[in-house]
Amino acid sequence: MTQSFHPPQRTLMGPGPSDVNPRILEALSRPTIGHLDPAFIAMMDEVKGLLQFAFQTENELTFPVSAPGSAGMETVFVNLLEPGDKVVICQNGVFGGRMKENVERCGAQAIMVEDEWGATVDIDKAEQALADNPDAKALAFVHAETSTGARSDAQALCALAQKYDCLSIVDAVTSLGGIELDVDGWGIDAIYSGTQKCLSCVPGISPVSFSDRAANVIRSRKHKVQSWFLDLNLVMGYWGSDNKRSYHHTAPVNSLYALHESLVILQEEGLEAAWQRHALNHAAFAAGIEALGLSFVVAEEFRLPQLNAVRFPDTVDDGAVRTRLLNDYNLEIGAGLGALAGKVWRIGLMGYASNPQNVYNCLSALGNVLSSMDVKVNVSAAIAAAEGVYSS
Amino acid sequence: MTQSFHPPQRTLMGPGPSDVNPRILEALSRPTIGHLDPAFIAMMDEVKGLLQFAFQTENELTFPVSAPGSAGMETVFVNLLEPGDKVVICQNGVFGGRMKENVERCGAQAIMVEDEWGATVDIDKAEQALADNPDAKALAFVHAETSTGARSDAQALCALAQKYDCLSIVDAVTSLGGIELDVDGWGIDAIYSGTQKCLSCVPGISPVSFSDRAANVIRSRKHKVQSWFLDLNLVMGYWGSDNKRSYHHTAPVNSLYALHESLVILQEEGLEAAWQRHALNHAAFAAGIEALGLSFVVAEEFRLPQLNAVRFPDTVDDGAVRTRLLNDYNLEIGAGLGALAGKVWRIGLMGYASNPQNVYNCLSALGNVLSSMDVKVNVSAAIAAAEGVYSS
Repeated sequence: MTQSFHPPQRTLMGPGPSDVNPRILEALSRPTIGHLDPAFIAMMDEVKGLLQFAFQTENELTFPVSAPGSAGMETVFVNLLEPGDKVVICQNGVFGGRMKENVERCGAQAIMVEDEWGATVDIDKAEQALADNPDAKALAFVHAETSTGARSDAQALCALAQKYDCLSIVDAVTSLGGIELDVDGWGIDAIYSGTQKCLSCVPGISPVSFSDRAANVIRSRKHKVQSWFLDLNLVMGYWGSDNKRSYHHTAPVNSLYALHESLVILQEEGLEAAWQRHALNHAAFAAGIEALGLSFVVAEEFRLPQLNAVRFPDTVDDGAVRTRLLNDYNLEIGAGLGALAGKVWRIGLMGYASNPQNVYNCLSALGNVLSSMDVKVNVSAAIAAAEGVYSS
Repeated sequence: MTQSFHPPQRTLMGPGPSDVNPRILEALSRPTIGHLDPAFIAMMDEVKGLLQFAFQTENELTFPVSAPGSAGMETVFVNLLEPGDKVVICQNGVFGGRMKENVERCGAQAIMVEDEWGATVDIDKAEQALADNPDAKALAFVHAETSTGARSDAQALCALAQKYDCLSIVDAVTSLGGIELDVDGWGIDAIYSGTQKCLSCVPGISPVSFSDRAANVIRSRKHKVQSWFLDLNLVMGYWGSDNKRSYHHTAPVNSLYALHESLVILQEEGLEAAWQRHALNHAAFAAGIEALGLSFVVAEEFRLPQLNAVRFPDTVDDGAVRTRLLNDYNLEIGAGLGALAGKVWRIGLMGYASNPQNVYNCLSALGNVLSSMDVKVNVSAAIAAAEGVYSS
């Protein structure tokens, strides 16, 4: 007989899921009610309002997709694209490549603009691609590349999209709640995110938002959306404002309780306060990492505070370090992904997990483990460097 | 400021979600760990084993899709079908129609075999369609039609599929855990279910299983699967047995804790005991419903014990009754769907909610509300009829 599963208590400082606030776990376990219950419908309206707050948008078509961030990405592409469309995709890591896969599976063409892994998206190259492809329907890019820790200039890229009369499509899986994001201010047409990064909610849901322009593109499609489950012309009947709330699929009721609570927490803290907290804890962590003699993949000005890609010495056994951290410290940090596999650690300071305690504990644990492997590091200096940032 | 959401405590006797066992809610709220944590990978192996038990299969490709049942349906069709394929679909309610939508969005052709809503699928008509379409790739049908409460003979239909060298595709969203289901014994090639029905788990996850024959069809596709998120050639890298466990998407960690616990509970009770419990509570409920002077849509021999479609008198205001039950008794029952909208109530006795207390309470509440609306009903006789079944 299989027994009940009792997970270990980890500290999650990888690329996500991040540590979930206990308030959110408690909300998650409240009694399930029906997905058409008036009390649930009222909560859905609140979730929509809270997402509009988090995205800084008045977009009517703002709601959580009932599946993980990858499905949020797919929701955007399958609804906006039709066979034969052309999309310019800026790639500077894993997730731009995933956009290409999505675009091609829609029967559309992906024009790739490639930048180095760890670099920010090059605005001039993006503009050249748009100039070379005047028939492009959309410009797509990743705001916060989770595989490298690089931030791109979403505002400038959206302005480019407008200049060339394209829809802008933004991957904000790792940015929402962690760094500035202004959907209406920047003129973003379609955006998707995840719950398990800077919202510190459980994984499995993908908040999305579409401008009226994007919503009209969806309403006036020539072909049916290739996915029934993700077809927004159907989903709008459930999440829309017409109060029909017609049944489409059974909403993941308890996961939406959790998302609601995570957004209430974000609202209590305030967007700018949350961004500043992420920035401060990153600064302290970065000072400590450099005092340990380690370095960052991404140049300082383009670095994401919530996702730190840290190079480790060639002599270090990557897997052994992560295993020691997990077994001895219950601390999860992430491995490199794609082109950076085996070359970096990805250390998250996301949402609830972005706090001084985690900064100190991670610097200590990492320093101790490296030290035990005969890497010369000065843990005290790292802690002092972090303290210096907090006290300045 | 939006406040935390505290749902009312309902008794869920609609078509799903059903009442969630408190053990499952508690498991759901255990601390989140990483989706690549060795402890989580070990739990995934247990979930797979438990699903093989619940489906009665040794299929290697057995796992939970990270999204609701509708996405499980789509997983099956987009992976098995390629443009130009032909599928015979038996429709006797809403969900056969949804299969057609899925098939057509794959660029495949749906040959519809239609039966009345509330009837079981007619085996002879299905056979005629297969004989008329020797190039059909698959025969698809709904085992337990949630929109009508009708059970179809999955064993006979799968035998037909084998006779005509077709893949069999089975919608078991409402059947798994509630009535007999034997994937290997009946030779089912592809099956999908949901967590929020007779497993009494939270909604949002869809268990699926594929025979080796179906898995080979997927591996030897000519075209890429149109959905990246649901492409099993990629998902197999995470859920497969090769121990690579390569990253595809972030698993809904906490929802999988809940699924694990719900399957542990099913294993503790035993499959046959669970089916017998559903049958007994249905028999008591049906006796009470008939003693109230109400009738069933489905003939007795084809009736699902877990989903009771009950006709109400023409004079009754459907919505007013359901609102009274919700407001005065915190009791949710379901409205009719599709062709049966406004004509029936759908009353679930699923999983944890299938118990004598719910049978008695629902008969009393329904009788009291009807009585207050000047419908002549004898509540005492209904309770006595149910008691008679339990004591016999």
